[in-house]
Amino acid sequence: MSPASRLKNDNFLRALRRQTVDHTPIWLMRQAGRYLPEYCATRQRAGDFLTLCKSPDFACEVTLQPLARYDLDAAILFSDILTVPDAMGLGLCFEAGDGPRFERPLREEWAINNLTAPDPYDRLGYVMDAVRTIRKALDGSVPLIGFSGSPYTLACYMVEGGGSKDFCHIKRMLYGRPDLLRRILAVTTQAVIAYLNAQIECGAQAVMIFDTWGGSLAHTAYVEFSLAYMRDIVAGIHRNWAGETIPSILFAKGGGQWLEQIAASGCDGIGLDWTTDIADARRRVGGRVALQGNLDPGVLLSSPEVIAAEARKVLEAFGAGNTGHVFNLGHGISRFTPPEHVTALVESVHQYKARS
Amino acid sequence: MSPASRLKNDNFLRALRRQTVDHTPIWLMRQAGRYLPEYCATRQRAGDFLTLCKSPDFACEVTLQPLARYDLDAAILFSDILTVPDAMGLGLCFEAGDGPRFERPLREEWAINNLTAPDPYDRLGYVMDAVRTIRKALDGSVPLIGFSGSPYTLACYMVEGGGSKDFCHIKRMLYGRPDLLRRILAVTTQAVIAYLNAQIECGAQAVMIFDTWGGSLAHTAYVEFSLAYMRDIVAGIHRNWAGETIPSILFAKGGGQWLEQIAASGCDGIGLDWTTDIADARRRVGGRVALQGNLDPGVLLSSPEVIAAEARKVLEAFGAGNTGHVFNLGHGISRFTPPEHVTALVESVHQYKARS
Repeated sequence: MSPASRLKNDNFLRALRRQTVDHTPIWLMRQAGRYLPEYCATRQRAGDFLTLCKSPDFACEVTLQPLARYDLDAAILFSDILTVPDAMGLGLCFEAGDGPRFERPLREEWAINNLTAPDPYDRLGYVMDAVRTIRKALDGSVPLIGFSGSPYTLACYMVEGGGSKDFCHIKRMLYGRPDLLRRILAVTTQAVIAYLNAQIECGAQAVMIFDTWGGSLAHTAYVEFSLAYMRDIVAGIHRNWAGETIPSILFAKGGGQWLEQIAASGCDGIGLDWTTDIADARRRVGGRVALQGNLDPGVLLSSPEVIAAEARKVLEAFGAGNTGHVFNLGHGISRFTPPEHVTALVESVHQYKARS
Repeated sequence: MSPASRLKNDNFLRALRRQTVDHTPIWLMRQAGRYLPEYCATRQRAGDFLTLCKSPDFACEVTLQPLARYDLDAAILFSDILTVPDAMGLGLCFEAGDGPRFERPLREEWAINNLTAPDPYDRLGYVMDAVRTIRKALDGSVPLIGFSGSPYTLACYMVEGGGSKDFCHIKRMLYGRPDLLRRILAVTTQAVIAYLNAQIECGAQAVMIFDTWGGSLAHTAYVEFSLAYMRDIVAGIHRNWAGETIPSILFAKGGGQWLEQIAASGCDGIGLDWTTDIADARRRVGGRVALQGNLDPGVLLSSPEVIAAEARKVLEAFGAGNTGHVFNLGHGISRFTPPEHVTALVESVHQYKARS
């Protein structure tokens, strides 16, 4: 693999290291997705969503689609957040119109005791093939981000058996049998470390941990059942590989109240959702970590003029000296976003000159 | 109406005024609900949910059910959050297994321009009859809380046409046509003021405004599109009626980052969800308002021992001198809660003696 220093555009990696940049880098969560007609066409050719995820060629194709349209500063591996529990044997499936479901939700003590961390090169070889294929296709243009769900977020899906509004099953376990939940989280943490390390070994130049559901926890439970395991992951992944440092980002949806603790996890960057004032976040933690975010994805539904104005507000709120800022949405892009609105956003961010 | 001073148990009202109390008062959001078999039986007799809401006798019956079982310190009017938009002509309906839906979502400019605030004694007379009936049935035992959704929360349902995961329609309006959203919010604010004042005139001794969806807004939009209108409501409702002060509570789900601004709204109490540390919240705003909350509703799914321990943690976090604290959950009680677990919670809270 060519080292990151030979990247044509390494602004994303430089921002995460809080080094100077040519412009504030931008990429978008779920940038390869249903708002793009070319993505929908590929998905239709693939037949279903899991085939799209499990085919390295399809995964590479859709990963590159947004980069062909927009001047984005990073690519992110196209995959599903639930590949790890699927490889643990829970049986991931998608029913039309529904979200993801597991055929075998994890609630019985015997099943939890039998849980083991899968070898990523064996059970998740299709992801590693996708990483290698995408990295080669990118040809040093922009860095490739690998990712995983956080242990608590994965456990939510594993225990609930799919998405949930109230998380009754996992909350019952958390308060009633915390030993069982800790066992799930410990095994999943080992699985995620091995999974992210394999992605790095195959070419991922940064990694992001999505803690989509940590924000549904009570404040003390958040530290104990979500943040502690993410801290173990950050400590357990390759920080240097092939002569390059590999930065890590924690995306903490609903975590605006806990930024100080998240910043102390050892991560290089925090992904902020749109409810947090990025100026305030920078004051609280900006000296220790980079910040990624945090435009309301709803802004992209409005108009190019409003998008430019709202993007500028985020950039100005981050403030003078734009180092340490990766522009992103505060959550995944909506499928209802007109693709030309993303052009307006990327141009606005790149044209912005921070007052220093 | 007998004044509140002749209530047999006025601890709830005293706590909201930050006066001394005999014990920390407790009530539970959605305390009249599906976790109670007697509620399910009444609902079955009523036939459907809207009939239950619209019949003053049924509404009174289910309001009193949790008070017959538990030593709760307040009753809350049983009604639906969407009665006001229904009275505005949007056509509320509930489909089996589904949440609420409006037959006529509010998205067209002409419909928004035609929106008017309904006379609560005319179009919402069934709610006023329920308030009078319940107040009479309570016979001075505990105070009765009236309530409404916040303008932004109501607007979410009105514009989306029902519940939503991503709020695409209202976000598009907020960023693309804020003038239309402001008109909806202004009319709804007038409707809510009239609605809450009518509830107070008919016997409600405190009022609560549920801002369930304000937490889905970006931080600046929260102040402009949700909090500003709640401030107008607090300023517009009867603060004194029949010789008594009427306290108001704002329940700010997902609002933990904005407590200082919420406390400055003029409200008497803030309802906290379970993600906020109540000790921290008290430090931030406790000198200005009372705090209500904030046990994770998931705790009630565990066991009486765990419930007692977790309730004590909230009480101890609130800290010495328990005045100014109303114990509650951080969100509505789960339908999967075993009813005897609520007994354990209420007893734990009442037996607790704060260190002073």
